[in-house]
Amino acid sequence: MMGVISDANAEALSRITEAEPVLVDVRPADEVIPGLEEGVLLHAGPPIEWERMCGPLRGAIAGATVLEGWADDLTSGEALAASGGVAFHPNHHFDAVGPMTGITTRSMPVMIVENAKFGNRAYCTLNEGLGKVMRFGGNDEEVLDRLRWLAERLAPALSDALQATGGLPLKGIIARGLSMGDEMHQRNVACTSLFMREAAPALARVAGEGKALEEVLSFIGGNDQFFLNVAMATGKAVMDPVRGIEASSIVTAMCRNGTDFGIRVSATGDAWFTAPVEMPEGLYFPGFGEEDANPDMGDSTIIETMGLGGFAMAAAPAVVGFVGAGSAADALNYSRSMYEITQGRNPEWTIPALDFQGVPTGIDITRVVKLGVTPVINTGIAHKEPGVGQVGAGVVRAPLACFEQALEAYGEKMGVV
Amino acid sequence: MMGVISDANAEALSRITEAEPVLVDVRPADEVIPGLEEGVLLHAGPPIEWERMCGPLRGAIAGATVLEGWADDLTSGEALAASGGVAFHPNHHFDAVGPMTGITTRSMPVMIVENAKFGNRAYCTLNEGLGKVMRFGGNDEEVLDRLRWLAERLAPALSDALQATGGLPLKGIIARGLSMGDEMHQRNVACTSLFMREAAPALARVAGEGKALEEVLSFIGGNDQFFLNVAMATGKAVMDPVRGIEASSIVTAMCRNGTDFGIRVSATGDAWFTAPVEMPEGLYFPGFGEEDANPDMGDSTIIETMGLGGFAMAAAPAVVGFVGAGSAADALNYSRSMYEITQGRNPEWTIPALDFQGVPTGIDITRVVKLGVTPVINTGIAHKEPGVGQVGAGVVRAPLACFEQALEAYGEKMGVV
Repeated sequence: MMGVISDANAEALSRITEAEPVLVDVRPADEVIPGLEEGVLLHAGPPIEWERMCGPLRGAIAGATVLEGWADDLTSGEALAASGGVAFHPNHHFDAVGPMTGITTRSMPVMIVENAKFGNRAYCTLNEGLGKVMRFGGNDEEVLDRLRWLAERLAPALSDALQATGGLPLKGIIARGLSMGDEMHQRNVACTSLFMREAAPALARVAGEGKALEEVLSFIGGNDQFFLNVAMATGKAVMDPVRGIEASSIVTAMCRNGTDFGIRVSATGDAWFTAPVEMPEGLYFPGFGEEDANPDMGDSTIIETMGLGGFAMAAAPAVVGFVGAGSAADALNYSRSMYEITQGRNPEWTIPALDFQGVPTGIDITRVVKLGVTPVINTGIAHKEPGVGQVGAGVVRAPLACFEQALEAYGEKMGVV
Repeated sequence: MMGVISDANAEALSRITEAEPVLVDVRPADEVIPGLEEGVLLHAGPPIEWERMCGPLRGAIAGATVLEGWADDLTSGEALAASGGVAFHPNHHFDAVGPMTGITTRSMPVMIVENAKFGNRAYCTLNEGLGKVMRFGGNDEEVLDRLRWLAERLAPALSDALQATGGLPLKGIIARGLSMGDEMHQRNVACTSLFMREAAPALARVAGEGKALEEVLSFIGGNDQFFLNVAMATGKAVMDPVRGIEASSIVTAMCRNGTDFGIRVSATGDAWFTAPVEMPEGLYFPGFGEEDANPDMGDSTIIETMGLGGFAMAAAPAVVGFVGAGSAADALNYSRSMYEITQGRNPEWTIPALDFQGVPTGIDITRVVKLGVTPVINTGIAHKEPGVGQVGAGVVRAPLACFEQALEAYGEKMGVV
């Protein structure tokens, strides 16, 4: 039995480390995601019904109904959603991921990351920037206008540029990002800059005229977190081939919808193991505090699932201050403790400050439960009311209960309980 | 006496930390550097005559005579230079700096960094990229064609972009670079990327048509060390206002011409204190070894003079492997030891891995001599024959003899010897 499990987990690790994620295109979601039709809305986290949704998620949904023309205004959009007029599904059920509220609807452009090693594809919307944005529950005209600009201007330009260059391999960019202080969850300034260096010449080649190109370059260059969504699509593309390995106890997804935290495990396939989400501990922007915060939210924990984010904190000492997690020494300790609950290391994604050890990779539910050490996650904090936006950033733990439930189901499947 | 000296050195430190370097323009050298006329050539390091020059410096000079039309070919150019037909001066005598051989002649475009706090300006040529380049002694048609392209295409585009944006403040970019693993001497990948993010939208605004813009963006984006020359002009602009403080024992310049290492000290004004350069210890590119190496060369040690490069090694654990200087722990130790010989810290340029201590700043010759601890420098290694190029990278120490001579002169000036 032990040999079977360790072989299965070794296979899971090798599928993660051998992945070859490539950004191949940016297309309207309904063109590439089957079933994403009129009235269908994808959200972050495990499945959830309207009644249990948090404020920002409801706010974002109302905004999306207006964006898609399903409702004339936010009030009627919310009524439509509350009365069963919108079909809600997790992004994860459609090969997709989304940050925070994680709304994906048909007209939104999605980046397509292909895992060239295994042939699967994953999708994630474009990062909207900071300020009032739908991922934090924003839904006014400013938010919707920006989403329209992304669809009408930025997405076609990026698509043309990616076609002109044959796609952008991402593994090396992330490796460089780790040597430049990014952990790819709350800090993407290096990878965004490297993305810009790669994309700008191609954008220049395909762009029509100077002003449109300047807008596109300014948008990407003005947003340190632009690469977050690229990294998330990468995470989904990297982790999906790990699903369904017969005896593997490795986590294939972690995500939150603002109410529940959910995980999936390789051997137990598509089953979700959920528990109430926790509140991040962190730092708040001026004028905000804990009383304003919404509980943890988003599919972005796919970043930690593949060994980055909180797991790679040692690579990003500058993020520690941003998320209120202590000193540079604490950053090292966060990463070190994650080696205790993971199957191994990623030989191509290394941490200079740990003398080029690979990032801790492949979360093993048996180790998590045995040691009581839960995955550490770097996260943004949303205001609990719709439409306000981000109010801080912090560190949060995945709830132990998810792993306990998963271990029970895994034990049953393996015939040991 | 001690009070006078400590006041003077405190003044020197504050002039360094209060500097406000801004990249304001890129212009042909002879348009902005008075006296840079026909037959005048500026080189790296302290003054040197043709007979004592190393191979790469002679090679670069021969190339420059052809580039400027002073000679028809390299052989006659070398003969012209050897026979007194070219007037040689250090860059430092003309408010300029240059990497490695550091050639500056009239047609070459120079970046202009203005220190907005003190009103002075400093100049440095554009980085040529890797491979066969004049700064490593390259002088064939490929080298000269690239220099012509820099003058005819890249420089005007950057000039227009800088005019359109009102200049690019550099202090914040360098601060971010330190949090992204750059030490600004052998590692400039972060700052080059940040420069690209800032410059690309402005370049798009001013560029005529797509192809020319694509070439410019590809050149900058394809060269991790593009920012080195920006950092060097910054160093010169930052350090020049420190010159001539009556009782200050702070170093205002360190540089090498491939034969001699030279330093200048605040209280002793324009005097050079020189000693034979040392050989870098480091790693060689495949196919090359110590027997191929030229001794230490270039004005780039202005980077260490202002507290970056080897002094900021702790910020750049990934550079340690490149220069063959050991492990991440060694990177911390290099920086820590430089605190022993410096006046203080730069509050705006901080090192995340040292819990945001400022970089060690203001090299004090009295501490260097008393402790026998010499400045540590991260450097590229040139082949000793002209025209071959870079063969490695390593760490080198400034020779103690320079500081001993300087201390003697300083003591005489202060009336204590």
